[in-house]
Amino acid sequence: MQGTRLDTARIRAARRVIDPVFLDSPLYRCEALEPGLGCTVSIKLETANPVRSFKARGTEVIASLLDGNGPRAVVCASTGNLGLALAWSGRRRGFDVTVVASRYAPAAKLDRIRALDARLELVDGDFDMARERAAAVARHDGIRLVEDSLDIETCEGAATIGLELVETAPSFDAVLIALGGGALATGVGHVVKAQAPGVEVICVQPLGSPSMTHSWRQRRVVTTDSTNTIADGVAGRHPIPAVLADLLLVADDAVLVQEASIIAGMRMLLDHAGLVVEPSAALGIAAILEDRDRFAGRHVATIVCGSNVDAGAYRRWVHAV
Amino acid sequence: MQGTRLDTARIRAARRVIDPVFLDSPLYRCEALEPGLGCTVSIKLETANPVRSFKARGTEVIASLLDGNGPRAVVCASTGNLGLALAWSGRRRGFDVTVVASRYAPAAKLDRIRALDARLELVDGDFDMARERAAAVARHDGIRLVEDSLDIETCEGAATIGLELVETAPSFDAVLIALGGGALATGVGHVVKAQAPGVEVICVQPLGSPSMTHSWRQRRVVTTDSTNTIADGVAGRHPIPAVLADLLLVADDAVLVQEASIIAGMRMLLDHAGLVVEPSAALGIAAILEDRDRFAGRHVATIVCGSNVDAGAYRRWVHAV
Repeated sequence: MQGTRLDTARIRAARRVIDPVFLDSPLYRCEALEPGLGCTVSIKLETANPVRSFKARGTEVIASLLDGNGPRAVVCASTGNLGLALAWSGRRRGFDVTVVASRYAPAAKLDRIRALDARLELVDGDFDMARERAAAVARHDGIRLVEDSLDIETCEGAATIGLELVETAPSFDAVLIALGGGALATGVGHVVKAQAPGVEVICVQPLGSPSMTHSWRQRRVVTTDSTNTIADGVAGRHPIPAVLADLLLVADDAVLVQEASIIAGMRMLLDHAGLVVEPSAALGIAAILEDRDRFAGRHVATIVCGSNVDAGAYRRWVHAV
Repeated sequence: MQGTRLDTARIRAARRVIDPVFLDSPLYRCEALEPGLGCTVSIKLETANPVRSFKARGTEVIASLLDGNGPRAVVCASTGNLGLALAWSGRRRGFDVTVVASRYAPAAKLDRIRALDARLELVDGDFDMARERAAAVARHDGIRLVEDSLDIETCEGAATIGLELVETAPSFDAVLIALGGGALATGVGHVVKAQAPGVEVICVQPLGSPSMTHSWRQRRVVTTDSTNTIADGVAGRHPIPAVLADLLLVADDAVLVQEASIIAGMRMLLDHAGLVVEPSAALGIAAILEDRDRFAGRHVATIVCGSNVDAGAYRRWVHAV
């Protein structure tokens, strides 16, 4: 794919430095979901690993590069999963990892970051405030700032999922990708458009956190004043210009879904696939539920990108009728 | 491993005929489980595939052999998962598949067998009655009877899990294996004892369905008149002599666990690993819960062997305090 910041040869090289426990995740057709969705559905499962999300693919690339000759102290802002992954990748290499997160992030994510021996700093605000604070920490302490979606390694790590998708036969008609900061969408989108251009790349974001989708549609950065969604993993107000530029080259569409559809998607994944997922991981199913005609009879792959969810909140969502 | 019916070269060959969607399943350390268990725990996850259990490893071996020159009609008795797997492996090859099961088997298993276009015959009794009926169907119709654990291919398929376990570094101190008919235990046990003899092979069965464990302890077939366990996947009254003979060669221990421990194990896997599992898949965790001292400080691998469970029953079990 010409024009994006990504390079397929570098993505292939990334596979060689990522711990194999995160690679070659399950990819399988889930027929039990199909009567309710009206299309053929394959799941790319990114939750069956030590950090329960795809994010370690990227942090493994970053940490392996730093392990050679870079600084051994790093800081990132995170909605939770990046911090968890960076803590995992950093701990095994003896790094000093600081994660800045919102104090309103799911306790499950915050607790697991602490359990991995990272220093956790909480801000009394949202992810974009955590980003500002992490940048200040990096400047003050003179340590490496890891910026999700902006740092190309985070996109390259995510893009290895794309390689695993396009190497599988038969191919899909469309891939549904959760859209937050954009690392997953631009990474997977780059590989799919380069290797299997006929496959439709569809990004999915909550209506309650629509900044990147609005930006993609208007082809310029559009910010919002607030977010309001249970899909904490993709919530953000300030799209990064360089990431938007890549997204404009690789996404065929970006759609917004309602909270009720996200919950319905979580419940379907539980009842028909036996999968506990966090809200962001149900965005693809939500998109199908909201536009069945678009997907009718087609083969759709959806990336189940994380399962770090508070048990109490999860039960309230999926058991409320 | 000398003496068993299994052969490591044949097990390696089996890997080449099993659909890759069932191979190289996730194997990862799950630290969130560890504070509650007092040992290092790795999970071998056999549920993230189209049939949600390990059984298709075996049915793929059987079906690929038949696909060449064997009969194209098959019948099996099943507690559910073997039938589901045989229906999947048979459908893609155009086989005529009949599954005989107890009418008391979980509806989720029976529904999924029907959805895969298999003919489902229900008996008004348990799995051992279904075995008798399946044998009668095979005789009457002159079709191939697939016998779980007795047919060596079912053991060889399961044994490929063993190859994936022993090929991983660092090694484990013990492997916990659900014990029912014995295909999983003898298959995995054979490979572990042949390739990594220092790893303890521990089979786990419910107190409410103890026939194979009693047989292993007494070194002769011991039957029971009934079973009483929620772990439907491992419930059986009549051990197969040839399978017991293999088990005597490969198992270091066989333990029995209470129903309450199975439920506690299911709840731990849900709350700390985000995994919905059927009761049989929680036997390993149950064994740790019942004997923490035995496993303290050791690295234990447990095979999460299936997730076909009725949603209603599952919710009653895991949410009852």
